[in-house]
Amino acid sequence: MSKAEKTKEYIIEKARPIFNKKGYAGTSMNDLIAATGLTKGSIYGNFENKDEVAIAAFKSSVTRLGKRLDDFIENQNSASEKFIGFTQYYRTNWERIFERGGCPILNASIEADDNLPFLKKHVQAGIRSLVHRLGKIIEEGKVSGEFRKNIHPGDHAYLFLSILEGGIMLGKIENNPKHLFAALDRMIKIMKEELMK
Amino acid sequence: MSKAEKTKEYIIEKARPIFNKKGYAGTSMNDLIAATGLTKGSIYGNFENKDEVAIAAFKSSVTRLGKRLDDFIENQNSASEKFIGFTQYYRTNWERIFERGGCPILNASIEADDNLPFLKKHVQAGIRSLVHRLGKIIEEGKVSGEFRKNIHPGDHAYLFLSILEGGIMLGKIENNPKHLFAALDRMIKIMKEELMK
Repeated sequence: MSKAEKTKEYIIEKARPIFNKKGYAGTSMNDLIAATGLTKGSIYGNFENKDEVAIAAFKSSVTRLGKRLDDFIENQNSASEKFIGFTQYYRTNWERIFERGGCPILNASIEADDNLPFLKKHVQAGIRSLVHRLGKIIEEGKVSGEFRKNIHPGDHAYLFLSILEGGIMLGKIENNPKHLFAALDRMIKIMKEELMK
Repeated sequence: MSKAEKTKEYIIEKARPIFNKKGYAGTSMNDLIAATGLTKGSIYGNFENKDEVAIAAFKSSVTRLGKRLDDFIENQNSASEKFIGFTQYYRTNWERIFERGGCPILNASIEADDNLPFLKKHVQAGIRSLVHRLGKIIEEGKVSGEFRKNIHPGDHAYLFLSILEGGIMLGKIENNPKHLFAALDRMIKIMKEELMK
């Protein structure tokens, strides 16, 4: 990495948790200056404006989340184990996730849908990356014969994501992970009862 | 209502959709001035600060949501019909709900959990009003013999709410009500398969 790339990466690293906790509208350039210890000029030297930092921070959050999920998925041997691995990421890391502001895709989605058109398509891409991850596991189970052939991967993937994001929201605002755990349990129950043969 | 009360009510009416769409951090006093056509002095004459307007607007949103839900619940004859009535509110009004920024409780929850301590307890109260509404329906079904005796109303109510809020989030950001409808269908499926005898 060049020095410029390193600075850019450093700004994104520092900006990510600020945006996730304070929101994209709620984060000011001064917050970014305070978090990075850089000057306004140095930030503007690397990004055109605050929106550009927001997009880069959000995309970086989605990439990191995907990598962390894959660490829980990839080493599993079957589709059902991969699915449980996906839920296990949240069960293992809920405290860290809550501390850092909750699900970055959920947070950005609530802000972007009405108010941040520049971010909306990136949020949709983030959602689809999770849908795709779950859908791929379902497809794999269909091919291997572990899951039923008549399952529509996309429909079930969106349903699983609804349950998951709602569970994160309730667990976080109630300061109680049991609502998230109940959502994860429900995802596994549906997988066992409706996807598995 | 006195003239002062009427002005206060008018400000709340106008502020509610602004806060729900732009967010509590994203809404400025100038937005409230533009929406109400009042002067800054007139708004400050009725509310101590922007946070006080935000709390009043949020509480008013929760009260209105509760009344609208009750319109779909109260005239039903059985617990299962009341439960379906609850989901029917969202199925009938999704377009209006989406246009006005989505679920006010979900939106405020995402902002309040990390960043707006003054709003957090009001959001928790809003969530509990929905949990209580669903829990009451479940209790009623247990008493009448329509639902199983061994169901924990609170646990199921939180689960239903997770599915609902996740469905609203995905439907809204994807501009597609089918994700909300799938969540509502799932709530009814769980009610029929797990609550009903």
